[in-house]
Amino acid sequence: MHKPGVFDFDNKAKQDARKETAMDLKSSLSSSETSSQGKGGADKKAQESKDILVTSEDGITTITFNRPSKKNAISFQMYKDIMLALKNASTDNSVITVFTGVGDYYSSGNDLRNFINDAGEIQDKVTMCAVLLREFVNTFIDFPKPLVAVVNGPAVGIAVTLLGLFDAVYASDRATFHTPFIHLGQNPEACSSYTFPKMMGSAKAAEMLLFGKKLTAREAWAQGLVTEVFPESTFETEVWTRLKTYAKLSPNGMRVFKELIRNHERQKLYTVNAEECAVGQERLKSEEWKDALRNFLSRKAKL
Amino acid sequence: MHKPGVFDFDNKAKQDARKETAMDLKSSLSSSETSSQGKGGADKKAQESKDILVTSEDGITTITFNRPSKKNAISFQMYKDIMLALKNASTDNSVITVFTGVGDYYSSGNDLRNFINDAGEIQDKVTMCAVLLREFVNTFIDFPKPLVAVVNGPAVGIAVTLLGLFDAVYASDRATFHTPFIHLGQNPEACSSYTFPKMMGSAKAAEMLLFGKKLTAREAWAQGLVTEVFPESTFETEVWTRLKTYAKLSPNGMRVFKELIRNHERQKLYTVNAEECAVGQERLKSEEWKDALRNFLSRKAKL
Amino acid sequence: MHKPGVFDFDNKAKQDARKETAMDLKSSLSSSETSSQGKGGADKKAQESKDILVTSEDGITTITFNRPSKKNAISFQMYKDIMLALKNASTDNSVITVFTGVGDYYSSGNDLRNFINDAGEIQDKVTMCAVLLREFVNTFIDFPKPLVAVVNGPAVGIAVTLLGLFDAVYASDRATFHTPFIHLGQNPEACSSYTFPKMMGSAKAAEMLLFGKKLTAREAWAQGLVTEVFPESTFETEVWTRLKTYAKLSPNGMRVFKELIRNHERQKLYTVNAEECAVGQERLKSEEWKDALRNFLSRKAKL
Repeated sequence: MHKPGVFDFDNKAKQDARKETAMDLKSSLSSSETSSQGKGGADKKAQESKDILVTSEDGITTITFNRPSKKNAISFQMYKDIMLALKNASTDNSVITVFTGVGDYYSSGNDLRNFINDAGEIQDKVTMCAVLLREFVNTFIDFPKPLVAVVNGPAVGIAVTLLGLFDAVYASDRATFHTPFIHLGQNPEACSSYTFPKMMGSAKAAEMLLFGKKLTAREAWAQGLVTEVFPESTFETEVWTRLKTYAKLSPNGMRVFKELIRNHERQKLYTVNAEECAVGQERLKSEEWKDALRNFLSRKAKL
Repeated sequence: MHKPGVFDFDNKAKQDARKETAMDLKSSLSSSETSSQGKGGADKKAQESKDILVTSEDGITTITFNRPSKKNAISFQMYKDIMLALKNASTDNSVITVFTGVGDYYSSGNDLRNFINDAGEIQDKVTMCAVLLREFVNTFIDFPKPLVAVVNGPAVGIAVTLLGLFDAVYASDRATFHTPFIHLGQNPEACSSYTFPKMMGSAKAAEMLLFGKKLTAREAWAQGLVTEVFPESTFETEVWTRLKTYAKLSPNGMRVFKELIRNHERQKLYTVNAEECAVGQERLKSEEWKDALRNFLSRKAKL
Repeated sequence: MHKPGVFDFDNKAKQDARKETAMDLKSSLSSSETSSQGKGGADKKAQESKDILVTSEDGITTITFNRPSKKNAISFQMYKDIMLALKNASTDNSVITVFTGVGDYYSSGNDLRNFINDAGEIQDKVTMCAVLLREFVNTFIDFPKPLVAVVNGPAVGIAVTLLGLFDAVYASDRATFHTPFIHLGQNPEACSSYTFPKMMGSAKAAEMLLFGKKLTAREAWAQGLVTEVFPESTFETEVWTRLKTYAKLSPNGMRVFKELIRNHERQKLYTVNAEECAVGQERLKSEEWKDALRNFLSRKAKL
């Protein structure tokens, strides 16, 4: 599914290596946006992709993980589709943007298949990953409208860490929140090394991020990661009713308030994101990472 | 009730426009203090005003919202009375300063009548508001003694956002906490765009500040805004007994500890306050604000 | 028990007075480390001291407060033993470092006997205390492995404030958390004037730090200070089972993640520590402190 012509990450990475400030990250983001839109096919591709669905009604743009056969694991193409969907949502006439998942899972996080080619061999995607991830996370940092997660089931890895950049997180009581980076040879990302300790204190953040403790929805609520937990039976009804009410509020007001809040720490978030990606680049060279990937491949081979 | 001779905000605003640093905010605060005290009448006025009551006994200075017929809504004069009461409390021989309300409400927040003249017409108070608000909030940032809120009933708007600058917040279980800025065309103030996300994480802060979610006392406690919730039946007895005990502790120790804590983020709070006031000045020019005010006026006309 | 030849604090203090930046604090820490290790006796002394026990097995180095007759109060020698134990733990082959206490208490905090000589007279240890404390706390800020507290019973003073620098805090339901600085003429330390408001919001932090409110284990959990509370009957079994599992995780991964998290605020923590110690030095000259010490001595005389 990866289209090198559209998102030429390796080449982009070389250019990016010469840039250093947070503002540069921002402008590099805009330029990739331009280039993708310059090749109309990319837009179309995103809209045609069935792994990410985008719909818009009642003032709400909904971006849906739609890959239930893989527990909504996020492929490279899906990262790109999400970025494009967020670009579009930032300027469409919707008021609120919502993420949710189809099926049992919200999302199982980054798809380890991203690192394997069609022949089942491990590919060197170190630089590409770091650049893609940095752009992806900056897109969330800079998203100008209220961003809401409707967590319908288990969330894993980056599907959890990203929540620290959301404005509301509603969870079904069957959702769980798991960041098993220590088992995967990867490291916490999406600014979670900053947002989680800020939100829950270091004694609770470290148990998630360092030791990989899995939280129930109720625990995630107690630690500030989740705004409210609903019984599975009424989850969808209650949450969407509430969101439709919120979507009738002043779009301009919410945009101004969100910018006011975000500006107090925007630069810090850019810096944290860059540091996490730099560490992540090193981690992808580690033995732990290679072991984790080999385990994954051997499990896959048995299926 | 507005006395232009005493607080010449329009003129002051022009002077302030030439000042930029947080330290300037501080010195502008002192100079207005001097000018108000230079015209003895201002002091007297504050003490004579019955909308803010100030009493002092058992080592506790209590500042009481006493305008129950208007749900303790805060008029311009009351803002000034509160600032003066805080100045006095900062140097009197009390140990702790307490805010509370008379009647059913703690306070319904900023009084929209502040923007209407006696003939019922909308006045342009944009600059005046921003300057008054900035001074008012800086007075809370700089208050040197422990500041305690005894929240006897519903709190709205600035009566809620200010709590992020308090050292303890005790709430009756019939108190509620509501920040409906999005419905009023105004924006979060009193540093809440910084203190609330810091205290409760962005997913909970945004639901209050962006979407105007009203919290119960118990919810506000769970999110760190309230120190402890008491049953209405024993609220006053339990809280005042505790406060009288605290008022016997070392005044000097508490002052030193509070300064130590506050200094870690004093400059940040000045900056956040200034940014919120700058955004607020723009908001008061918005159509949303004018609509909100017109709604308020039409409701008022029907009474 | 104080060995001036090994930790020459008075002389060190004079040198330190000429240093100002946080980085200097760090290098001064390393130099004292070198000097203590240069005199082999110091290492041996630490290992021989029975008030701090150090054991290592199953990938876990455990540092135990072992002075139950004094409720595990921390003597000057114990501060030094702990620093040395942490140095050793930072480079031994263990994965996790754990603090716990022998007997009923976790630790009753700083031993006021530290300020009294063998003849029962008050000694001027002002400078020495500030320097020792700064080094001690910096050792916790810089500790590179996951740091876990197994709080078996009441914790007081610095035994509580230090928890803000831990990565996980497990508490028995008979543990309590008490920071009665206001009663002791001392001030909050171990970066708690920063970590506590950050973790729990100012309205909850101030009640502990300014007013000396004692928390139950459950309250400390609700405020983010404690990761999880266990019934006393199963506390040891559950916690150690969990820790042994965590100790099998990637040592390198945890070290990298912890460094990533800590680096976002390492400089801030150095600065806060230095400010707390500077304030503490002044507090030790106050009448409140002398009164507290006299009270302590008179209680001691009656025993």
